[in-house]
Amino acid sequence: MTRQDGRAYDELRPIKITTDFVKFPEGSCLIECGDTKVLCCASIEDKTPPHVAEGEGWVTAEYSMLPRANRERSKRDISKLKLSPRSAEIQRLVGRSLRAAVDMKALGERTINIDCDVLQGDGGTRTASVTGGFVALALACRKLVEEGYLGSTPIRHFVTGVSAGIVDEQVLLDLQYSEDSRAQVDLNCVMNELGEIIELQGTGEGRAFTLTEQQELVRLCAKGNRELLKIQKEALGGAL
Amino acid sequence: MTRQDGRAYDELRPIKITTDFVKFPEGSCLIECGDTKVLCCASIEDKTPPHVAEGEGWVTAEYSMLPRANRERSKRDISKLKLSPRSAEIQRLVGRSLRAAVDMKALGERTINIDCDVLQGDGGTRTASVTGGFVALALACRKLVEEGYLGSTPIRHFVTGVSAGIVDEQVLLDLQYSEDSRAQVDLNCVMNELGEIIELQGTGEGRAFTLTEQQELVRLCAKGNRELLKIQKEALGGAL
Amino acid sequence: MTRQDGRAYDELRPIKITTDFVKFPEGSCLIECGDTKVLCCASIEDKTPPHVAEGEGWVTAEYSMLPRANRERSKRDISKLKLSPRSAEIQRLVGRSLRAAVDMKALGERTINIDCDVLQGDGGTRTASVTGGFVALALACRKLVEEGYLGSTPIRHFVTGVSAGIVDEQVLLDLQYSEDSRAQVDLNCVMNELGEIIELQGTGEGRAFTLTEQQELVRLCAKGNRELLKIQKEALGGAL
Amino acid sequence: MTRQDGRAYDELRPIKITTDFVKFPEGSCLIECGDTKVLCCASIEDKTPPHVAEGEGWVTAEYSMLPRANRERSKRDISKLKLSPRSAEIQRLVGRSLRAAVDMKALGERTINIDCDVLQGDGGTRTASVTGGFVALALACRKLVEEGYLGSTPIRHFVTGVSAGIVDEQVLLDLQYSEDSRAQVDLNCVMNELGEIIELQGTGEGRAFTLTEQQELVRLCAKGNRELLKIQKEALGGAL
Amino acid sequence: MTRQDGRAYDELRPIKITTDFVKFPEGSCLIECGDTKVLCCASIEDKTPPHVAEGEGWVTAEYSMLPRANRERSKRDISKLKLSPRSAEIQRLVGRSLRAAVDMKALGERTINIDCDVLQGDGGTRTASVTGGFVALALACRKLVEEGYLGSTPIRHFVTGVSAGIVDEQVLLDLQYSEDSRAQVDLNCVMNELGEIIELQGTGEGRAFTLTEQQELVRLCAKGNRELLKIQKEALGGAL
Amino acid sequence: MTRQDGRAYDELRPIKITTDFVKFPEGSCLIECGDTKVLCCASIEDKTPPHVAEGEGWVTAEYSMLPRANRERSKRDISKLKLSPRSAEIQRLVGRSLRAAVDMKALGERTINIDCDVLQGDGGTRTASVTGGFVALALACRKLVEEGYLGSTPIRHFVTGVSAGIVDEQVLLDLQYSEDSRAQVDLNCVMNELGEIIELQGTGEGRAFTLTEQQELVRLCAKGNRELLKIQKEALGGAL
Repeated sequence: MTRQDGRAYDELRPIKITTDFVKFPEGSCLIECGDTKVLCCASIEDKTPPHVAEGEGWVTAEYSMLPRANRERSKRDISKLKLSPRSAEIQRLVGRSLRAAVDMKALGERTINIDCDVLQGDGGTRTASVTGGFVALALACRKLVEEGYLGSTPIRHFVTGVSAGIVDEQVLLDLQYSEDSRAQVDLNCVMNELGEIIELQGTGEGRAFTLTEQQELVRLCAKGNRELLKIQKEALGGAL
Repeated sequence: MTRQDGRAYDELRPIKITTDFVKFPEGSCLIECGDTKVLCCASIEDKTPPHVAEGEGWVTAEYSMLPRANRERSKRDISKLKLSPRSAEIQRLVGRSLRAAVDMKALGERTINIDCDVLQGDGGTRTASVTGGFVALALACRKLVEEGYLGSTPIRHFVTGVSAGIVDEQVLLDLQYSEDSRAQVDLNCVMNELGEIIELQGTGEGRAFTLTEQQELVRLCAKGNRELLKIQKEALGGAL
Repeated sequence: MTRQDGRAYDELRPIKITTDFVKFPEGSCLIECGDTKVLCCASIEDKTPPHVAEGEGWVTAEYSMLPRANRERSKRDISKLKLSPRSAEIQRLVGRSLRAAVDMKALGERTINIDCDVLQGDGGTRTASVTGGFVALALACRKLVEEGYLGSTPIRHFVTGVSAGIVDEQVLLDLQYSEDSRAQVDLNCVMNELGEIIELQGTGEGRAFTLTEQQELVRLCAKGNRELLKIQKEALGGAL
Repeated sequence: MTRQDGRAYDELRPIKITTDFVKFPEGSCLIECGDTKVLCCASIEDKTPPHVAEGEGWVTAEYSMLPRANRERSKRDISKLKLSPRSAEIQRLVGRSLRAAVDMKALGERTINIDCDVLQGDGGTRTASVTGGFVALALACRKLVEEGYLGSTPIRHFVTGVSAGIVDEQVLLDLQYSEDSRAQVDLNCVMNELGEIIELQGTGEGRAFTLTEQQELVRLCAKGNRELLKIQKEALGGAL
Repeated sequence: MTRQDGRAYDELRPIKITTDFVKFPEGSCLIECGDTKVLCCASIEDKTPPHVAEGEGWVTAEYSMLPRANRERSKRDISKLKLSPRSAEIQRLVGRSLRAAVDMKALGERTINIDCDVLQGDGGTRTASVTGGFVALALACRKLVEEGYLGSTPIRHFVTGVSAGIVDEQVLLDLQYSEDSRAQVDLNCVMNELGEIIELQGTGEGRAFTLTEQQELVRLCAKGNRELLKIQKEALGGAL
Repeated sequence: MTRQDGRAYDELRPIKITTDFVKFPEGSCLIECGDTKVLCCASIEDKTPPHVAEGEGWVTAEYSMLPRANRERSKRDISKLKLSPRSAEIQRLVGRSLRAAVDMKALGERTINIDCDVLQGDGGTRTASVTGGFVALALACRKLVEEGYLGSTPIRHFVTGVSAGIVDEQVLLDLQYSEDSRAQVDLNCVMNELGEIIELQGTGEGRAFTLTEQQELVRLCAKGNRELLKIQKEALGGAL
């Protein structure tokens, strides 16, 4: 099978990370994965939610799509007075993924909120939000160090995310919308720089999948995540 | 490590499925997994949502916890005017899992809604909702056959769900709350009767996990799901 | 007229109160009045709402029906973003009824919240909520005594509730749904153990009723409440 | 005991009904009971809600207080995104009371909505809403006749409402706020012109009350309702 | 062109301001501009919102229409769970206009809330809300002085509002609904007693308008505002 | 007075309009006015709201700020369950402004929705939304022509918007945030290509302003709008 855009089965779309795309957040980037574009903004607040232990910090995320990020316009959440359940699911995934990157004691009593707003969606927006959200998070932590609030970064390791899936019985890395919309199996995998898994979500709505297939998909994601890690490091100038 | 309730590392909690716990739904059961109790009710409606293709059916799920299902009372969603994001995430998982069980063309233009209401929560409520929700769904489909609306059941295969995790560096099947609340890794796995995966969700908030660990957790879930399958079959009187 | 289930005109349905049906609340019971099943859970909180005088306590109630408690599935409140007006009316009635049972100064600066969740509804759910809610409330107060927070129970007297109505021009005690849905007059009466009235709500949508009829209905309720009182006392082991 | 405003124990406050206080509704009046002022507006719509039988009409009510109708300003419902539960309770009472006045088959497939907006509240707003709401309803029905939509009024009988209570162990008719706020027992009674009961709501939050006391309160209300009936008839020019 | 009600092009409708129309607010009036009737109530609260500087006060406004203030009944905001965007726009205008009237330091740490509830709407409700709202505000400030909380009124100057428009190519002052609904240009102008502008809002949905036309409309409004000022002064007994 | 960024008092900030910034909408642009960045997307729908006359079209707008568009992060509307009143006010202004540009009969039974999402806000976002929104609208109309749905564009004239204000007693064109936040008078003016006014909103919260000052501000806006018109024309390649 040839992919619509000529990519190899294990090839990422072109990835571009523009840091400081907007100027007010403590850290921000625009991440582009092919035609998917997500604006990720990190905001630091000097307090934590009630459930957080004293002396520790917190990281959380919000995810939303602009009304015309997609082929069809969708109504704004506020018009329906409901957070889209899909957005709720995704922002919980992004939040858990990014929390795994941070030493909460080292962060101290602060909350970093990562806003992931999809300007254009062409598949893979949730993993792009993880990968781009990490860059915004790292930049915000760097600012805490630069401004003397922290002695060193509270980031424990890099975090990236990518999807893989089975389309027409073939495994493919980094599905774009035209592939995603007819995938039999879809798997999202968030990893740290050691290639260990932080979040794994596999779904077989089209058909169920075997443990062997699942492993193959994770290995494909591992390859993609290694490449995303390099791109993140470049975007961050080589260091946290 | 000895488990608090004396179970082996790969042992399910006692499971009990009481069918027809309430009398009005087209199918219902109370599923008890240790101290976790979920009431699952299937309701049939003779229409489908707009996105469903003509001639096909739909299966969806709603999940909620009663305010005092837990150690602390939680406010009702309606008091906060927001569906809990955790509930949103879970009901999407349950819905996808149960849709995978059904041949939508065979179901015809009907929606089956599975309400999963947690009366008491002690860990594993989302996978109990899948396992119990399947029983309610199968009973509702049986009723469609018995009442002559369908010639045979539209159920394609059984679906069960169970969790496994890593606690104190040890893999454990079917975490109860006291284990779940300090788990390093938590993985939910929904399977069909062939042992194929339908949904897989693994999370490492405590620490990341390796692909090898992940496989071990899935294998543990596969064992649990095989046992749940037997219990489902008994509850359904041996046949769909 | 013979009643559908063979009861005498002044006969209650079979009543069953299962205390501690769930294990986390400070007090709980499942009350079954014929096919009506309501789970009543009492939760204690160590603070009171702003309008409560210093040094005094508060008792309040919430009432809800599970979506498939009835013949037809109803949408959840959160799907409509509105507390059902009927639920609002009922939980105010239950709250007033149970507050009347308690010496608020003796309770001290605590709130006891009674959640009444209807698992199955077959008429009389509001009065079942009062009768079962009282048991949950009494158990929670007992716990406050047993754990040494209070020297003696703040309960002043038992509280029970029952309905009566006029169906086909005949007065009947404890209407079930098939009677209730075609009643000409419906009257709910909450009483204390002295047979005094705490709440009285009579409605004639079918036809108006005379003061004489109203008195007859209250007397019928008084009989039912005396029997419910005995059942409450048994459920509570004879003492508050 | 002397009442603050010098009234006898069985005396209504001065009642004034100004019809057509506003000009757009199909029927309207401002009802003043002492310092309580409620604007009642009837609106006719040429369709009915789904639950209404074909060929029949429907009557419903909405009740609200202006933010500064009381001693303290209260927030608008829309600021809290919740219909006040008290308003929900009251508008259900008013709706049931006014439905009892109308022959729904004679009304035909129309809905009459009665908006009761409290401009100033000094006790008895719910019964003032019933009494004033009836006048607005009757005027709207008269308009249907005058404009040829109906051959005769669908009103079956007049409906009035009034409260009585026990204050300092003494029964009193038509409680104003200073009495109501310290009443031991409060009873609202809606009646038709034959003195039959349509709605009866008695509450003993201060103390329980006997059946004898309850009867005395209803008799007091019957006296008040007879007087309100005369005032309604005058306001309507003697005829429906 | 002759106006429907015989007014000259630069003539206001009959204006009537009834102070203390309701008795609980610290200041209130019913303002009638022809058939437009708005109840304006001022409430004083001894605290300010977070954004207000220490030692200073705040003035804000809320605007709403009763459901049957108009030819057609409109649903209540709470039924739609949304503040009408039109109301949001108007209450911001009224709030800004009335804040301009007050010396916030002289007011001290208090909030005055002006509720403008339209009982009947026949065009010009927003400017009637400004003109009547000012009277309510001034009365509340007077009360602060009379009760000794302030040494002198914090009102800096009178504030009035009126509309003008172009209908059938002719400029007209104070549009009533029958004119407003077919106006080509509509302009609202809020002024102080020196004839200076506080708020100016001009809209050309029918057609655009020239700067010359705009000036003519403002001059017409200035004339109307001078007359409204006299009426306000009379209503306030000649002094602030 | 020297402006912070060295501009002359009557000089616009650098304006940049990037058309087709995102690829799915029927028309879109990113408009940058200095540091203010607004993404404007036009979506065409083949139906109109109920209030629109048969055979005619409709244009409407929605406006929102991303949470971190500003110096401080603001909560999303959906978190507060309320459309920000400021957004409501602005989107009504943008909608009226853009409707004035279109011949609704020529548009036919279609709705064009203009989403204006502020990515970065530094003053003047509402007028930037008008200016950029017009470009998105014009592109969408062009697409209707190119795809053969319309014979010629339904745009009647160009529409641009800009603000002016009085800061430190000096009139200034196109206020940026640092000026806007301490402006004495702020005036927004939307004009067509003939220099006629479509929307005019002037506010004097700091101090009132004279008719002469108002005229000067409008003239300044007229100058700015003429320059914006040129930039729009360039962005659109010279033709509608």
